[in-house]
Amino acid sequence: MAHIELKNELPGIRGLMAYRPETEAPLNALAEVLLRSDDNTLSRGERELIATYVSALNDCFFCQNVHGALAGHYLKCDIAGIDGIKANFRTAALSDKMKALFAIAGSVQKGGKQVTEAQVNEARENGATDAEIHDTVLIAAAFCMFNRYVDGLATWAPQDRQFYVDRAPQRALDGYQSSVYK
Amino acid sequence: MAHIELKNELPGIRGLMAYRPETEAPLNALAEVLLRSDDNTLSRGERELIATYVSALNDCFFCQNVHGALAGHYLKCDIAGIDGIKANFRTAALSDKMKALFAIAGSVQKGGKQVTEAQVNEARENGATDAEIHDTVLIAAAFCMFNRYVDGLATWAPQDRQFYVDRAPQRALDGYQSSVYK
Repeated sequence: MAHIELKNELPGIRGLMAYRPETEAPLNALAEVLLRSDDNTLSRGERELIATYVSALNDCFFCQNVHGALAGHYLKCDIAGIDGIKANFRTAALSDKMKALFAIAGSVQKGGKQVTEAQVNEARENGATDAEIHDTVLIAAAFCMFNRYVDGLATWAPQDRQFYVDRAPQRALDGYQSSVYK
Repeated sequence: MAHIELKNELPGIRGLMAYRPETEAPLNALAEVLLRSDDNTLSRGERELIATYVSALNDCFFCQNVHGALAGHYLKCDIAGIDGIKANFRTAALSDKMKALFAIAGSVQKGGKQVTEAQVNEARENGATDAEIHDTVLIAAAFCMFNRYVDGLATWAPQDRQFYVDRAPQRALDGYQSSVYK
């Protein structure tokens, strides 16, 4: 049971967003720009994967399953594949650029000052642009917020991981700005 | 020097926001609703104080000085006073409700799952509403994002703390949605 009376039965962040529409709007607008905007050289799947990895590091069941399922949807990868990437991205079938961006995201999860010049250089040497480094840091930082919001208020989450996989195609069509109402 | 070429000389998050206006808009909209909306039973000063406390726990110099100066402006409290609250809120001249909300914010900073039922009960017993508990968690979570964004990209910040105090009255008038351009 959530720490506060949400007056709805929606899971995870969706219950919080329905409870407080004034903060829902900028939060979903942020997710929409960061994770879905077409004007980005990181694919939607790559951005969802960074979100999933940070959510796993923060041990947020709801977020890592929602975004893991979306990453899997975009990248044509099943739950086991996504779990493998979360468990060890260095040995996963990711580009060297993505591995370098994952390392940056992992540092952001610990704290902003953990990101090193060497990590940024590794990303750049593997082809990452300034915009991609920027967005990686902000996606990782944003999920340090979303994860704390979801778990800090003790929201409930469906435990069947297939639930998230089944919903992902529709969410991919709808985007985040309609996430409260569907 | 920042990890990426921002093409501007603005400090802290302002440089990042000018670099990426697409994400600036929802980030400032979130700060505006959370920290300044009149439709809130926590005062602007109280909300800025929670933001300051979390930014101090995250050791983010820019954010703790920007928001500490704003808290000081609203609460008529100087730098030493704000520093005293950050150092030990339990012995500070805060209401028992605010102390309980600070405890929740401190747990959110560590991780969402660190918030306990006992902390929520303490807040409620001291008069906190569900909306206040919600907003405390989301302010704390949001500053875990803002702090990581600012430091994860190694932005610069004016080191003279009086700089922030001097700017606070104008920022209090302007709000956050104009923060990039002023």
